[in-house]
Amino acid sequence: MASYGETVNTLIEQFARLPGIGRKSAERLAYHLLRVPPQEAFALADAIRQVRERVQHCEICYMLAEESTCEICQNPNRDTSTICIVEQPRDVMALEQIGTYKGLYHVLLGRIAPLDGVGPEDLTIEPLVERVQAGTVEEIIMATNPTVEGDGTALYISNRLQDFPVKVTRLARGINAGTVLEYANREMLSDALNGRQAF
Amino acid sequence: MASYGETVNTLIEQFARLPGIGRKSAERLAYHLLRVPPQEAFALADAIRQVRERVQHCEICYMLAEESTCEICQNPNRDTSTICIVEQPRDVMALEQIGTYKGLYHVLLGRIAPLDGVGPEDLTIEPLVERVQAGTVEEIIMATNPTVEGDGTALYISNRLQDFPVKVTRLARGINAGTVLEYANREMLSDALNGRQAF
Repeated sequence: MASYGETVNTLIEQFARLPGIGRKSAERLAYHLLRVPPQEAFALADAIRQVRERVQHCEICYMLAEESTCEICQNPNRDTSTICIVEQPRDVMALEQIGTYKGLYHVLLGRIAPLDGVGPEDLTIEPLVERVQAGTVEEIIMATNPTVEGDGTALYISNRLQDFPVKVTRLARGINAGTVLEYANREMLSDALNGRQAF
Repeated sequence: MASYGETVNTLIEQFARLPGIGRKSAERLAYHLLRVPPQEAFALADAIRQVRERVQHCEICYMLAEESTCEICQNPNRDTSTICIVEQPRDVMALEQIGTYKGLYHVLLGRIAPLDGVGPEDLTIEPLVERVQAGTVEEIIMATNPTVEGDGTALYISNRLQDFPVKVTRLARGINAGTVLEYANREMLSDALNGRQAF
């Protein structure tokens, strides 16, 4: 059987390793790059290389940064008394898009997941404890994902921080804005009932 | 509003230019490459670069090739009396996967599409005419896509070749193996009726 040739096959294999990209999509992508002007393909190759050469994690909060600290930690207008704990840099971006939170963040770079072999020591929990120990933090907002693993991670961290004089809160849970009750699942309705608020 | 930083944004934009990849997928891909070992990201960057540096089109049939001619044209066991005309290199791969066709190919590198500004002169039709003029070809099989543009392209080429002593055929059309008549559309059933064969 004929093949695209070794170079093209290598590219297809590399694309197929990316999340959400199957063999057929990988072929389509490889083929697309063969048709566009060469500089467009080279621009993508350079962007991939540079992102690994230039981007690191912020020394304070572990957000992505091109310098030793990220732009949020560098911003003197942020409220340093509040730290919002998230699993991933993408979660920071999601919260920043609301535009109302003015505190700092702490990116765990994962969640405790025993089945995947990820323990507390694989996350940035110790640096978080050091930040809390430094003493200026008054509130920790748990914003891990509302999953079994995310909740477990939040619980572990709140236990870890119980001896410090900080208030630990978590994101509200309930029904989503814009959905109908008919399609809400049991956990969602149960959270909504338990967390009901004065009207 | 915070951003991922310029380097990460550049990569997200580059990924978002690829077909079938939206902004959210581009972010996920960029983020994935930030988490994998650096050599994995570099391997993808190198594969993209090399595919544009090493891969060209076969001088004879315009299939992808790492040398001046492709492995199909180089193969002495292929039947040089038959040329199958396809739109894209991927079509060659699809036909090769059946494993029964032993002739050669000719890749048009597109189809005549006036609305997209693609005319006959943008395709590899002239090199095809030269191949037919050379005299060893006995049959041309039209395997362009069964679309308005693919059919139009096949018609144009068959007109272009009418003065040469070659048999011009096209792929059979009808109902798909494995489907039920109930879901066949009108064009498919019409093709199937018109092309009915002795039982």
